[in-house]
Amino acid sequence: MAFDDLELPSGSFKDVVGGSATFAGLAASTFAPVRVVAVIGDDFPEATLEEMRKREIDTSGIERASGKTFRWAGRYDADLAGRSTLDTQLNVFANFAPKIVPAYRDTPIVLLGNIHPALQLDVLEQVRAPKLVVADTMNFWIQGEPKTLAALLKRIDTLVINDEEARELSGTHNISRAAREVLRRGPRRLIIKRGEHGALLFDDQGIFAAPGFPLENVIDPTGAGDSFAGGLVGYLATQPDITPLAFRRAMVHATATASYCVEAVGTTRVAKLVRADIADRVMAIRALYDYGAGSMS
Amino acid sequence: MAFDDLELPSGSFKDVVGGSATFAGLAASTFAPVRVVAVIGDDFPEATLEEMRKREIDTSGIERASGKTFRWAGRYDADLAGRSTLDTQLNVFANFAPKIVPAYRDTPIVLLGNIHPALQLDVLEQVRAPKLVVADTMNFWIQGEPKTLAALLKRIDTLVINDEEARELSGTHNISRAAREVLRRGPRRLIIKRGEHGALLFDDQGIFAAPGFPLENVIDPTGAGDSFAGGLVGYLATQPDITPLAFRRAMVHATATASYCVEAVGTTRVAKLVRADIADRVMAIRALYDYGAGSMS
Repeated sequence: MAFDDLELPSGSFKDVVGGSATFAGLAASTFAPVRVVAVIGDDFPEATLEEMRKREIDTSGIERASGKTFRWAGRYDADLAGRSTLDTQLNVFANFAPKIVPAYRDTPIVLLGNIHPALQLDVLEQVRAPKLVVADTMNFWIQGEPKTLAALLKRIDTLVINDEEARELSGTHNISRAAREVLRRGPRRLIIKRGEHGALLFDDQGIFAAPGFPLENVIDPTGAGDSFAGGLVGYLATQPDITPLAFRRAMVHATATASYCVEAVGTTRVAKLVRADIADRVMAIRALYDYGAGSMS
Repeated sequence: MAFDDLELPSGSFKDVVGGSATFAGLAASTFAPVRVVAVIGDDFPEATLEEMRKREIDTSGIERASGKTFRWAGRYDADLAGRSTLDTQLNVFANFAPKIVPAYRDTPIVLLGNIHPALQLDVLEQVRAPKLVVADTMNFWIQGEPKTLAALLKRIDTLVINDEEARELSGTHNISRAAREVLRRGPRRLIIKRGEHGALLFDDQGIFAAPGFPLENVIDPTGAGDSFAGGLVGYLATQPDITPLAFRRAMVHATATASYCVEAVGTTRVAKLVRADIADRVMAIRALYDYGAGSMS
């Protein structure tokens, strides 16, 4: 969990509550009860935790450490297509070792946020036989911790990365071949996020393409990927079985969730999301695909 | 119609038959009879014209001028994501003024290739009340001939451009807003091609997203956009009415057509395409979207 200082085309915003666990937790809570594991400093507002609890988010796994909360400062390009990091202050995150509280040990679906793969493995040691483990990672760990990451890949069901990360991890430019190589290393499924171009799911059934939802007003892309992952696991938590088709529907719900996230600064929109919002946008996403029933000829 | 000298990751290829009219004509002929208007020099092989005629392509509108055929030389990046032009020789294309032969005047569907918008307008003056006019253009005309292009936009049904061109034409980065602005200027429909990320159709029904088909072996992207346009109008020529749903199905058939094109050098693959090939790939593209019938919840 974090504070973000954001320089957006629409203005500058300081001390915006952010962080992967915050975005993913809020997003997932639109669908199902959520348990969050994270660290905050003594400057983190209790009111935010209270808001989360009102959304059926269990915050007992959030550790309040002495010191300041993690902080990221970034500047987005005028067209929001790229961003540069202006400052990163690890603060209490520097010594974070996720502790899974007893009440969390039987959590059926585990989303491992983007931290050191050794810590991700450590979390998996602390939970009991989850039915689904989804993990995020990034170039920093792909380059710096290839062996630990390789061990993690053998322990997870689904890896969620972006196209550049898939290319780097596999050493292959072609995205389909890169996906095949990543799947060979362990995970049953790979999701490749492609920003405004949507996301691809690769599994033993083939490939599923969730389109990006064409938005007219993108305000803040921060947290879009985390909201996608949160929406994905949140939707899957509502399903009796994690079948290939349920996973495909989850991709569409994840897309819907992320599309709302970027329409406001920080967690503003995702913190208020309800299932009816998701249903509306899922309908709109389905319309993107609609060429009528029946024959294609 | 052209000769291309291609430097591809798989090797260098000289005197490859290419050109927008060639790719689009061959692609469209997979679906319906085609009439081609183009110019070639005396170096262009009669055998290629004969191959085209075997595919129900009427070549009587192809003018053989004294001199050399248009030539383009280009080098693709190792990952085929970008390319640079090494040489362009206009040759007989420099003085080309499309002449619509009498037998062509009642052609119901007209695809205007990417040439000077004044010449595109001139072609429209020579045809009688086509039921569909689709036009391509490029940055060069958007920047250099804005007024003539504006006049053209008022005369066409559908504009086919890529995302950068849509941004440049509209002066807007956001792709949905850019599309709205382009539609405000005349065309009923706008197709925005996004390479491997597929293509978007904007019309009065909303937005349709045709996914890029994830290929494992991309050999030569030359002509992909022209094959897309050819597949689009070819499919539409088979339809009794150009309804919004027929146009959406055409987007999928166009995607299938283009996906074959890039699997071989030049026109090699597109020159052999049959409807059964298209049907196979359309099935594969539909599978990319398939999340099962019924409820999304």
